[in-house]
Parts: sequence; structure tokens; C-alpha cells
Amino acid sequence: MSIMEPDLHKLNITDPFLGQYQRLVRDVVIPYQWEAINDRIPEADPSHAIANFRIAAGREEGDFYGMVFQDSDVAKWLEAVAWSLCQKPDPELEKTADEVIDLIAAAQCDDGYLNTYFTVKAPEARWTNLAECHELYCAGHMIEAGVAYFQGTGKRRLLEVVCKLADHIDHVFGRGENQLRGYPGHPEIELALMRLYDVTQEPRYMALAQYFIEERGRQPHFYDIEYEKRGKTSYWHNYGPAWMVKDKAYSQAHQPLSEQQTATGHAVRFVYLMTGVAHLARLSQDESKRQDCLRLWRNMAQRQLYITGGIGAQSSGEAFSSDYDLPNDTVYAESCASIGLMMFARRMLEMEADSQYADVMERALYNTVLGGMALDGKHFFYVNPLEVHPKSLPFNHIYDHVKPVRQRWFGCACCPPNIARILTSLGHYLYTVRPDTLFINLYVGNSATIPTSNGELQLRISGNYPWQEQIQIDIVSPTPVSHTLALRLPDWCGSPTVLLNGEKVSGESKRGYLYLTRRWQEGDSLTLTLPMPVRRVYGNPYVRQQAGKVAIQRGPLVYCLEEADNGAALHNLQLPAQSAFRTFEGKGLFAHKILIQTEGYQNAASSAQPQPLWQYDSAPVVRQPKTLTFIPWFCWANRGEGEMRIWVDEA
Amino acid sequence: MSIMEPDLHKLNITDPFLGQYQRLVRDVVIPYQWEAINDRIPEADPSHAIANFRIAAGREEGDFYGMVFQDSDVAKWLEAVAWSLCQKPDPELEKTADEVIDLIAAAQCDDGYLNTYFTVKAPEARWTNLAECHELYCAGHMIEAGVAYFQGTGKRRLLEVVCKLADHIDHVFGRGENQLRGYPGHPEIELALMRLYDVTQEPRYMALAQYFIEERGRQPHFYDIEYEKRGKTSYWHNYGPAWMVKDKAYSQAHQPLSEQQTATGHAVRFVYLMTGVAHLARLSQDESKRQDCLRLWRNMAQRQLYITGGIGAQSSGEAFSSDYDLPNDTVYAESCASIGLMMFARRMLEMEADSQYADVMERALYNTVLGGMALDGKHFFYVNPLEVHPKSLPFNHIYDHVKPVRQRWFGCACCPPNIARILTSLGHYLYTVRPDTLFINLYVGNSATIPTSNGELQLRISGNYPWQEQIQIDIVSPTPVSHTLALRLPDWCGSPTVLLNGEKVSGESKRGYLYLTRRWQEGDSLTLTLPMPVRRVYGNPYVRQQAGKVAIQRGPLVYCLEEADNGAALHNLQLPAQSAFRTFEGKGLFAHKILIQTEGYQNAASSAQPQPLWQYDSAPVVRQPKTLTFIPWFCWANRGEGEMRIWVDEA
Repeated sequence: MSIMEPDLHKLNITDPFLGQYQRLVRDVVIPYQWEAINDRIPEADPSHAIANFRIAAGREEGDFYGMVFQDSDVAKWLEAVAWSLCQKPDPELEKTADEVIDLIAAAQCDDGYLNTYFTVKAPEARWTNLAECHELYCAGHMIEAGVAYFQGTGKRRLLEVVCKLADHIDHVFGRGENQLRGYPGHPEIELALMRLYDVTQEPRYMALAQYFIEERGRQPHFYDIEYEKRGKTSYWHNYGPAWMVKDKAYSQAHQPLSEQQTATGHAVRFVYLMTGVAHLARLSQDESKRQDCLRLWRNMAQRQLYITGGIGAQSSGEAFSSDYDLPNDTVYAESCASIGLMMFARRMLEMEADSQYADVMERALYNTVLGGMALDGKHFFYVNPLEVHPKSLPFNHIYDHVKPVRQRWFGCACCPPNIARILTSLGHYLYTVRPDTLFINLYVGNSATIPTSNGELQLRISGNYPWQEQIQIDIVSPTPVSHTLALRLPDWCGSPTVLLNGEKVSGESKRGYLYLTRRWQEGDSLTLTLPMPVRRVYGNPYVRQQAGKVAIQRGPLVYCLEEADNGAALHNLQLPAQSAFRTFEGKGLFAHKILIQTEGYQNAASSAQPQPLWQYDSAPVVRQPKTLTFIPWFCWANRGEGEMRIWVDEA
Repeated sequence: MSIMEPDLHKLNITDPFLGQYQRLVRDVVIPYQWEAINDRIPEADPSHAIANFRIAAGREEGDFYGMVFQDSDVAKWLEAVAWSLCQKPDPELEKTADEVIDLIAAAQCDDGYLNTYFTVKAPEARWTNLAECHELYCAGHMIEAGVAYFQGTGKRRLLEVVCKLADHIDHVFGRGENQLRGYPGHPEIELALMRLYDVTQEPRYMALAQYFIEERGRQPHFYDIEYEKRGKTSYWHNYGPAWMVKDKAYSQAHQPLSEQQTATGHAVRFVYLMTGVAHLARLSQDESKRQDCLRLWRNMAQRQLYITGGIGAQSSGEAFSSDYDLPNDTVYAESCASIGLMMFARRMLEMEADSQYADVMERALYNTVLGGMALDGKHFFYVNPLEVHPKSLPFNHIYDHVKPVRQRWFGCACCPPNIARILTSLGHYLYTVRPDTLFINLYVGNSATIPTSNGELQLRISGNYPWQEQIQIDIVSPTPVSHTLALRLPDWCGSPTVLLNGEKVSGESKRGYLYLTRRWQEGDSLTLTLPMPVRRVYGNPYVRQQAGKVAIQRGPLVYCLEEADNGAALHNLQLPAQSAFRTFEGKGLFAHKILIQTEGYQNAASSAQPQPLWQYDSAPVVRQPKTLTFIPWFCWANRGEGEMRIWVDEA
């Protein structure tokens, strides 16, 4: 049952659409973020992340500045660089990264400890506040960077640093005498240790991940114990002192995982934790943890998932709400949460050959994740609403977290570097590589060399997904390979067809994949056609915020109305049940993108003067014909501030 | 232009509907609240309000407990008692009240200062924190109580106490040397001083009100000056230190009133302030202040008023949002704000003979104000949502302020005693008494003796408003009186008719009133018929939260759907555009109340299993016929916890 991770040196993304995003990350985002973490972008919030390492390394005088988890921005940047170097060597960038790694190594303490906040500001307070202070979270990101940099460049320097760090953590934490029985407030170390195990095969790392997962939520509660021990001090104050200690569900630490029934608390923490759990469940063949994953995925995906692949319905605690409570305008739907959702989905796919995980992964990728970044690669959303009315935002505090346009950089800058690392490591999500079967999860154009139990299979996927219906899969292996290809049949597609060398084939279809077994040889060609009519998606009757409304989807893309095309007061637009859609290619900003138009209605006041509210009108509003223009939601807010909405009233 | 206030001894409310509320207040609410402010209700939050006075008076040892404005609960209770004694003498209750007044007098300092919080807790800190500490607010409520108790009982004791208090305040505040140039954070003293002026004709009281109003919002800002002076200490911390000092719009102190263009900040503060301003504008014949009132009323009533007569769209700051931003589920719409709205409307009616003010007053009274109290008189809403989904409330923090059922008493108990005093003083709102014209604003059954320039006019209004369409106005004066009666033609009524002694009359109709001038004599009888078909009120196209929705109104009452009658998932119910309504009298809890039924639809999932969200359904939902039952909104949540909604999707 061993799953192989594709080597990103041998997986070249050629996709016209996502390839451009990868180039954007390489050419714009990574250099921009380098400037940002070095505080050279005047309009952006200061970062100080690199300076913190210099100070911790003793190379500079000064004080720590930034969030307690500021180090993780550097780690995520390094990870993005590592994956980017797989796609395209860049000696200068690699040299810069090597220098950052030197700096990190210099900032590491002799015992392996590595965290600039505590090293600079409060060395005596190490490991005294796991609930609030993100030490293990930062360690996890550094471990991920170390693994990625080794995989991307073959260089072991950072891998050694993070192994030393992991060894230190393994020494400090556990159930032994003189060990701390702690675990992180913000999960991340678990998934990172599993990746480190994948690379090093060191069983202590997997055991440590298992310890952190299994210790979680036990009584007496570690967060309370450490809180007492440190004299009830608290780092975060925004919702009252020690709220993170008290609200244990926020960190999914209110009960052991095996007892949890619903996705709850901070959405990013939840998916990060579950990514590690799924990885561990598979490698340790732990059926009980597998059931935890299945159960919690089910709750999240069936009852708490937005059509955009967003999760986390509320701003308070950046958290899930409850089943079917999915407000469109006050939603949080953090970009990082959808990135974590892709990670969780990837690990579920490695455990279960079921396309539902790929369906959700695709939904998250093509909608919220792409939408988290502006088309210029320099502006980012942290929060991804499904409906925005900019005029109301400054006045009603329920919208305090919502921005109508993407921002340059954030004081809490978790999302931008996270988008960069997911887009550069996309290759990890396209396939699930089992010894006997190659699962194709996403139809992203690429050339890949994939290991199989019968030798290497070389293939090329091309097309223009998600705009065009046809996907070409060409086998280019010089020698024939007997193998099974499993093609995902997307949930959004009613009538997929597959041709093999021009002939219709019908393999076995199971849990959303079409299985084709054959001695594949050079020249074999599969043509997958996924018809992409414009679809009306009807609001789920369990979700009151979607009642009576429809959304527009084409392929995996969710569409929306924007003020720039449709004027203000989008809430007055109605989509008739029978109206036909026209698709056409956009221009300028929307070049190479498919836009949609249809004939609808606009409700308007019966008189030019607004009807005063004290006379709540008893005359029906006037309905006028109106052409509605829908754009792919991921590229909203690229034309300045304006209204936007996904769910539209049906006429 | 002198307006007379009806003497409530000569205005006997006989209304079958509101009369019962008055009895409820007299028999249940006032005794219950007396127990509450004496801490004798075990299930309720402690009050300590009476104990604070005993401690301040030196009659008991102990510490102050409660809100900084706890005194006002006693004052509001006394005011309710005073008006109640006008309706029905009650020697025992009067004796209790007299004892409370003795206690209050004993708690007053020699110099006239009266406030138990500062007297007990921080005598040196008197008048050092007007922005946050409600001293002038409490003084205002005590002044109102003094005026009411004098008017209600003829007893001068409390009036003398509050005159001494007002004199002290007049001595402390003003533009003279050695005077503080302050004004309150929470307006109330202004309207109270105007009432005190009405009773005493002491011009200093009106001048002091004028000073407080005109000083407001000037630069350099008094809140900043006192904040600096007291060493930047702050009483309220919930949104960060000194947020009340910083967010000056919260208290309508960000700019002088003459510059304010919109209703903004804390809704109760706004309407309390404007009540005083309108009263002053009329008595001082100040055209500029009249324009301020007209302008700010217009903004509030035309753009920020809920169909329920609620104001204050957001919980944060219990405040207005902005034009046309009226969420139904996260709304605040505090009961006190609608009470203040009635007070503001009353003063506007005294300034302007325009029925729009009475229309809003009626909307507030019959919907939010009545809805603020349970039918048992013992449970109260502070927040009055237009839509509630109880299952979501505990999980999504945007609903933290919303309760699905009325509560016994509140730690911050402003609303319950405010409801008691408005319901007992209803007589002040029925008429505007001008020397030449008697304006009938509300069709509440009553017998009244009204002063006119030609002697006393005695009349009796009967009917069964708001349930029945016919209202009878009988003249019962023993001697004829030449006078004009002005009958309000409600905005909700399309075709009112008036018969005089059985004959159709057509007087002049102006700004919403029908003027009938005549030598009125005993036996004259007016029959006003206000047809009350069930009305569909269409959402205002400017309000996105009402788009595509309709509400049901009959007469002045707004109706709603409740889960108890219609099952759960009210968002799936639809009201067809053409469906006919049946009205019928309810039973039990709804005896003597008109309920409404109609045939509508219920949307349901196409399968019994909920469609998972990750497969956002592309099949339209199934629509089934369903009888919809609407109840008057003011009596929702009297049958336990359940869903409720006013705005319903139109099919």
C-alpha cells in the first residue's frame, strides 16, 4: 500500500492556466515576498522576519518584532523557493536561500532549539505556553522547509537543522519522566513530522507525531497545567485573557480526536491537524484514526463547506460555525484554510481511492486558493467572502474582517506565503501514485515521469483546463509499461467520455475514478472530454443563506456577479429559471478566461425617489430586463472596489 | 404654539388590548421589578439597586454593586409607579414608593449631588468621567422620576430632590469660570431637564439643557480633556481601553449636532438626545435645531428603520450601521431604542403636525416595544431580531447578543423598567394637545378630558384596535366646545372612511391628518373605519437583506412565521404572489389575537438524505404545497425556543 510522492523535478507543469500562476509565483510573488520579509516594501505592514533571525543569530543588535509566529513566514518562503527551484533552476535565488539557511542555522541554539521570538525575547520562557505561542507550529513550518529544500535542491543543510530541531523536540516532549506532556495550540508539527519521516524514515519522527495527536484533549488538560505553572500569564488578549487556554475547541483540544464528531474551532488548525492524522493513519494502518478522518471529513465536507471550497464560517476564532450555517457576507473562509483543505484532501486521497476528496481539492484550488491572490501576484485576500457590499463594510462591525479588495501584505502574513508554496508544489496534488495504479486527480497540464512497480511511466497531460472541455493524455514512455490509469470523473460533470487512440473505451468506474489497465506504450493517447455546460447550482435546502438562490458554475469554477459589469445593488438582480447562457472569452484582464452572460431581471423601486423605510412599501417593485454578466469568482476584485455576489435570487 | 401635556389622571385607558398590558404592568411587572431591584428573584441576575441607595444613605454597610448606571433602574421603576398610580390608586404601592423616595433623599449629598456609585465607591471621582460613567444619565432618569411622581401623586418630595440635583448640576456645568465645560456620554439629562422645565417653568433648566446640547461635539473635545486630566483611566474595557472616549460618534459627540448628517452611534443615545433637542427646539423656537431634528429624523426613518420600528442594526456599540444596511438576524434593535424612538416621535409631533411621526411611533409601539416583553410580563428581550435560527446561535459569534427566548432580568437591566414606564405613560402619546386642535395620534381606547382654548373637551375612543377596523370616537362633554379634531390617517391604510353621526364627512386632509372643525357636543359620534386587509409589504430595493422578500402586515402589526406553527427550516417557505389570506382568531396564548394563514410552498431536498455540500446540487429543490401560518411578531417566542422569520421569499 505504499504511496510514492512524485519527484517534482520529474513533473513539469505545462498548463496554460496554472502554469502562468506558477510563473507568477516564481517571477513576482517569491521576489516580492523576499522584499516583504526584509521590510523593503514601503506600503506594506512591516515584517521584520529576516531581521529577527539576524538578531537571534547574533549578527545584528535589536529587538524581536512581529507576531509570535513570524518565523513561519521565512520557512514558507523557503519552501516556495525549494519547489520553485524544481521547476526552474535559478542560481541567484538558490544562493539567497542558502544564505537564509545559513542564517537559520546560526540562529539555532546548541541544543537544537530554534525560534527567534523566544531566543531573542524570552529564552527562559521556552515551551511554557504551547497553547498560545506557536513554537511547535513554527518548528513544523521549518521542518517542512527543510524537507522541501532537500527534495528541491538535494542540499542537506536545512534538513540537518530541522532534524536537530525535531530531535530536540522529541527529547523535550513525551510521556517519559522529565518530559513535558504537551502538544501545540496550533497543529502543524504533526504533518511536518510525517513529511520528515517520509524523507528520513526515522521512526522516532512518526512516533512523535503520533504522540502529539494522541495526547491532544486528554485530562487533566495540559493547557490548564502549563497556564497554572507559568502564573496564569497570557500572550493573546483580543477576546479576554487566556481565551485560547479556555476555549479549547478553538484548537481542537477540547476532547480526544476519537471523540470529536464535528469539524470545529479554528479552521486552519483543524485541517492542518487532520492532514497529519490522515498521513499517520495510512502509514501506521491505524483503522481507528482512519475512521476519525472519515467521520470528520464527512462532517466538514457535507455540512460546513462553501461552494467556493472555503471553510470557516465566522471571523470570531477564524472558525467553523455549525452544520449548515454558512453566511455569505460575514464568512471568514481564510485562504490558508482552503490551502490546508487541499493538504487534508491529498492525504485522504492517499488513504482512500475516492474522487470526492479530489473534487473538494479541486473546488478549493480553483476558487478560494486562486482567489486569494490578485492577478498581479502582489495583493492577497486573507478572508474570502461570497458576497460583498463595500458601502456597508466600514459601518457595520460584523464586517470588520472583510476587505473589498486584496491587500499588499498583512501584519499576520500567513496567507500570502502559503499561497506561494501551494502553487509551487501543485505537482504533489495532481496524482496519487500507487505501485499498481496512477490516479489522476487534477487535469492540470504537465509532463511527468512516474515510478510504477513495472518501471517508469512517462506521460503528458495537455488541454486548457478549466476553460476547455477536452483533455489529452499522451503516453510518452520509451518502453511499454503495464499499469492502471485511474481517471477522475469530476462530480460536476454529468457525461464524461474517454477515447483511447480515437476509440471509445469503457473501463471500470469505481468511487469516481475510471480504471484503465493496459500495457501502455509510446503513442497511446487518451482523450477525455468533460462537457462544461453552464450549470445552475441550487442552494442546499439545509442552508438558509442559500434559500431560493442559485449559483453559476462551469466546470470547477464558481462564477459571480460584480458591480463593474452589472452596476450596483446586485441583490436586485434575478436569474430566471429558464434563461439560456452565452459563454465568451473575455478581454484584457479576462483574456483567455471564459465569461458568461444571460438575460435576467433587475428589481427597482417603482419611483426614482427611494421609498422611505417608514412607509414600508406595499407596491411590488418593478422588474426590468437586464443582461447579467458573470465572471469566474477567483478573479473578482481585480478592478477596484465594488459589490460582488455568488448566490443570486432565482426569478 | 403652546402644547399641553394631557393630565394622566384625566386620561383613562380603556383599550381592550393595551389596557391589558397596562394591567399587566401594574399587577405583574411593577411588583416583579420591585422584587428584582431588591434582589429577591433567585433565577435573575442580581440587581442591588435598592441596596446601593441604602448604603449611600448610610443605612446599611456594604459596597456598591452593579452597573455604573444601576440607580436608573430605581428611577425608571419609580416613574412607572407614578404613572400607574394615575391609572389606579394603590396606597400600599404609593407607601413603598414614598419610602424609596425617602431613601433617595437620604442618599443625596448636601450639595445636591446624587449618585450611589460615586458616593459609595469614589466620591473624589465625581464628574471626572462624563464620557463613560453615566452620572448625568442617572441624574436625568431621577429628574424624570421626580417630575412623574409629582405629576402622578401631587407630592413634591422627589421633585424637590431633583430640583436640588439639577441646581447642583447647573452650578457645576457651564461656560462660566470654575465651571466644567462637560456634557454626558449618554444623553438623557437634556430631555429630563426639558420635562423639569415644563413642570417648574424654571428657565435655568431649559438653559442648562440647551448648554448640554450646544456644547456637544465642540473642539477641543471635552472627553479628551477629562481623559487626560484623570490620568487616562477608563471605566469600560470591553472593546479596548477608553474606546468610548475614542469613538466619539458612539455618543453622537464626534461633531456638533448642526453638522451631523446621519443617525449614527448608539441608537438609544441618539433618540434620547434628539427627544431633548426637539423639545427644546419647539420651546425656544430655534429654527436651526428644528432643521437638525428634521434632517436626522429623515435619515433615521427613511434609511435606517426596520419594519418592526426597531433601530440600531448592529450589536457592536448597540449602534446604527449605515443607510439601508439592515440585517435581519444579526440586528440589535434594542427595546430601549424603540422606546426612545417613541419619545423622539412624540416631541416631533409636538413640533410638526405631520402623521409620519405618529406612523413610526405606532410601528415601534405595536411591534418592538410590545415584543420586548413576554405575554407573562416577566420575561424581556433586550435585542429584537427579525429572524432567528436558534440552532446556529451558540456556534456563530455574530449571534452572541441574540437570545431565542425572553430572559427574566438582565445584569444591564435598562429595558424591562423602560418598557414598564412607557406602557404606563402611554396616555402621553395618544394625543397632541394644541390650544386650537386635538390631534389623535393613536387609536387606543380611552376616556379623556382635554383642555382646549374654549374649555374642556371630553371624549371617549373605543374599538378593538389593532385587531378590528372600526374606531368609535364619542364626544361626552356636558357643554358644547368649538374645536378642531385632527384624526390621523395611518400610512398603512389605503382607504379610511369617517362618519359623523352616521353621515359621511370629508374634512380637510393635510400631512396625514383629517381635520374636522365643529361645535362638538355630547352625543356627537365619529366612526372611523380603517380597513385592515392583510398586506404584502415588498422589501425595499435599497435594502439587500430584504431583496426578493415580502413581509406580512395587518393594520400596524407586522407578522412572522414561527417554527411552532410551520415546522423548522422556515427559510424554505415561500409565499406565492397571488395567494389569498385567511384571518382568524387564535386560541389560548393567541386568544383575542388575529392570526393569518395562506397557502404557500415549502422547498425540500429532492432526497430524504441531505445532499452533501461538496456536491453542491445541480437539481432544483422540490417544491411542495404548505399552509403557512403567521402570528403577530410582537408575540413570538412565547412558546419556547424555535425559528422565527418576518421576511419570507416570494414564490
